[in-house]
Amino acid sequence: MAYKVRVNLIGAYFGMFLSLSCKGRGFSVLTVESARKYGGFMETNVSAEKALQFLLGNCPAGGQERVALPDSLGRVLDEDIRAGEDIPQFDRSPLDGYAFRAADTLRAGEDNPLILEVIEEVPAGYTPSKAVSAGKTIKVMTGAPIPEGADAVVKYEETLEKGNTVSLFQAFRSGQNIVRAGEDVMKGQIVARKGSVVNPPLIGLLAALGISEISVFRRPRVAVVSTGEELQDLGEELEKGKIRNSNSYSLAAYISELGGEPLVIGTAGDKAEEVAVLMKRGLAEADVVMTTGGVSVGDYDVVQDAVRLAGAEVLFWRIDMKPGSPTLAALKDGKLILGLSGNPAAGMVVFQLLASPLIKKLAGRAEYLWQRIEVLLKEDFRKNSPRRRYLRGRLVWEKGTALMEFTGGQGNDVLSSLIECDLLAEIPAGSGPLKAGEKLEALLLK
Amino acid sequence: MAYKVRVNLIGAYFGMFLSLSCKGRGFSVLTVESARKYGGFMETNVSAEKALQFLLGNCPAGGQERVALPDSLGRVLDEDIRAGEDIPQFDRSPLDGYAFRAADTLRAGEDNPLILEVIEEVPAGYTPSKAVSAGKTIKVMTGAPIPEGADAVVKYEETLEKGNTVSLFQAFRSGQNIVRAGEDVMKGQIVARKGSVVNPPLIGLLAALGISEISVFRRPRVAVVSTGEELQDLGEELEKGKIRNSNSYSLAAYISELGGEPLVIGTAGDKAEEVAVLMKRGLAEADVVMTTGGVSVGDYDVVQDAVRLAGAEVLFWRIDMKPGSPTLAALKDGKLILGLSGNPAAGMVVFQLLASPLIKKLAGRAEYLWQRIEVLLKEDFRKNSPRRRYLRGRLVWEKGTALMEFTGGQGNDVLSSLIECDLLAEIPAGSGPLKAGEKLEALLLK
Repeated sequence: MAYKVRVNLIGAYFGMFLSLSCKGRGFSVLTVESARKYGGFMETNVSAEKALQFLLGNCPAGGQERVALPDSLGRVLDEDIRAGEDIPQFDRSPLDGYAFRAADTLRAGEDNPLILEVIEEVPAGYTPSKAVSAGKTIKVMTGAPIPEGADAVVKYEETLEKGNTVSLFQAFRSGQNIVRAGEDVMKGQIVARKGSVVNPPLIGLLAALGISEISVFRRPRVAVVSTGEELQDLGEELEKGKIRNSNSYSLAAYISELGGEPLVIGTAGDKAEEVAVLMKRGLAEADVVMTTGGVSVGDYDVVQDAVRLAGAEVLFWRIDMKPGSPTLAALKDGKLILGLSGNPAAGMVVFQLLASPLIKKLAGRAEYLWQRIEVLLKEDFRKNSPRRRYLRGRLVWEKGTALMEFTGGQGNDVLSSLIECDLLAEIPAGSGPLKAGEKLEALLLK
Repeated sequence: MAYKVRVNLIGAYFGMFLSLSCKGRGFSVLTVESARKYGGFMETNVSAEKALQFLLGNCPAGGQERVALPDSLGRVLDEDIRAGEDIPQFDRSPLDGYAFRAADTLRAGEDNPLILEVIEEVPAGYTPSKAVSAGKTIKVMTGAPIPEGADAVVKYEETLEKGNTVSLFQAFRSGQNIVRAGEDVMKGQIVARKGSVVNPPLIGLLAALGISEISVFRRPRVAVVSTGEELQDLGEELEKGKIRNSNSYSLAAYISELGGEPLVIGTAGDKAEEVAVLMKRGLAEADVVMTTGGVSVGDYDVVQDAVRLAGAEVLFWRIDMKPGSPTLAALKDGKLILGLSGNPAAGMVVFQLLASPLIKKLAGRAEYLWQRIEVLLKEDFRKNSPRRRYLRGRLVWEKGTALMEFTGGQGNDVLSSLIECDLLAEIPAGSGPLKAGEKLEALLLK
């Protein structure tokens, strides 16, 4: 906390200084005004890392529920699952053949066949009623338990059957062609940990263990509030100067994809009171509220004022990055409000950077951060990057090396370049133009 | 067809030869017997590539349906979508500021402010009623249309307002701070192609274009039939020698994950008639039928006989690979039957190799093959691989290089190593033990 206050004071000091001397040079002067207006300090122009810390640090704990195994795909375990038994439960034959004592075969060979007496046949699903002793064998089908006394199995195709005997033409070592109990999973072993996402093979393994119901985290509910007088919904004829509300559709889909339940609350105009009403509805019904629009410089007061009207405390405003700098986070009774840019691409890039890890954590996932990988640029990027910049691109492979190619325009409103984007590469602040072949760190969005 | 017959005859020739001379050396001798029994030739021990060709080449065409945009996440487009309008539809301001004629600012500088008269203010969602002429400016909010006559915008924070005037302190070039109509998408442009999977940004873009409903491929229906006397379902107390049916659970989940609709038909014992009844039910209700179990050497006749009883033609039996060699494919009235191994891991590896591309193609996806990448082994693999072998592993990154580490045991029944598996690396037939650092081709399962 001491650190936080100190940073704020420095920020405020610079803000003050800038407002007096730097007018006309592109600096925002609202820091101090806002701090004064709301009677406190909030952090402005924070790093993406710090913004993420604010959100993850205030992520509420998720609830639990029990679901039937077949309905658990994609859900997140809220408990470690231990195997209550071995899988397989008994030593079994991996093939159709004959079980016998390996010691019997010591001298067996192509010209010296070992002839064994077949005393029983055991299909899969049945158990042998007899034991195998010297000179005897039991026919076992794939999956059948290994009879007592036997310690090796020969493939059916490698034998010669005749009446109630079978000939073997080679020596076997003890344990050959036997799948041991517990080869897949040992009793007591943790087969899946709390925080893992349930996938098809895990469902199969849980079924094998006889687990028909599991405890998972409740899906996080995420409310979506759009702001902006210019927004019209689908289906309406577009009036001049208006645009269609696309953000609530893409956000709802992103939230679903992450295992959350989107609650599209609605669209408010540019009046703080109107936004606050929807925001409060979102806070009442959901775990997190996301707004779009109303967070850039001139729009500043709309979402900010709505947050205040809703009784929430601003955690930060503006992130030191491009695109998506105009972003706001606030907290009300342990529930987060994340104000995203109304510019579609800027809003969605910040969604990927901040909201996606937040929703994953809220959903109970143990791994909620994007994987960072090193990529080589496949083409030049000609612009300077005075502040940290995130580029939208696609991972391509050349030999074992990861390259990134751009998926389209990088403007704040260019949503089309997100469609095939599975990489967000990070250009450090202060970088000049980049050449193809340059190394960048990137978030792997999958 | 000529090629197919020739290959079959060669296969049959070798099979015949082997059946006469190689008894006891581990070769399957059922090829010719089976060809005789069913009065024709089928391909046996095909390559994984050939098996895949058989399936993809017989993949039926998917049906279509229309869905509302918010319900389209994960669905596959069955038409190219063209933009009916520009996005944005008009030149707009990307920030809160003032629109003016760039030519006016030619001599403007820090010590030579240009003073403009503010003649109107245009919020987002509204249109200017006036045009901008020399010496005049219109205040524009983020997203507002650029007024007629103006060709540049200055940020609000870089100006000084006084009464109904505003001062600018620098020169601007024409077009500065203006987002052009069509910057994201141009009217007539294809924004998404037939066969693409609908994702969140595409949903946003389609909303922006006013598209509220789209045409997608119907979800493919995939029937799952389990075979095996040893199988018990969840919830029942496990009898001695029995195991739980896990395959139908994991298969259903895999099918769902791929956008298919699983139809779990049920479990048959080891009688062909019983299997055929369930198979026919699957053929009647689904686009594809998958069975598990009953396809290895001794089990051979069960699924094979059931296929014959169902009136289907066998396309191939056995694949030249490990795990999962016992696999069968058949065709009945244009519908495919895929018989997978009952060994959980073997069955699921083949599912990934063959069924997953098949279901994706059936679902209408343009990209249905797994991406192949080059990886370096992170650890030794000590076994010989007389036939082509697929190893289960996990992609890890070191710098920009893709490495593969094993996710557990590689046995036919080891399902647990599939849980974290996102790579299937391919060891060529005839390979000896492999050292860490060796290069392999791998299928990237994500």
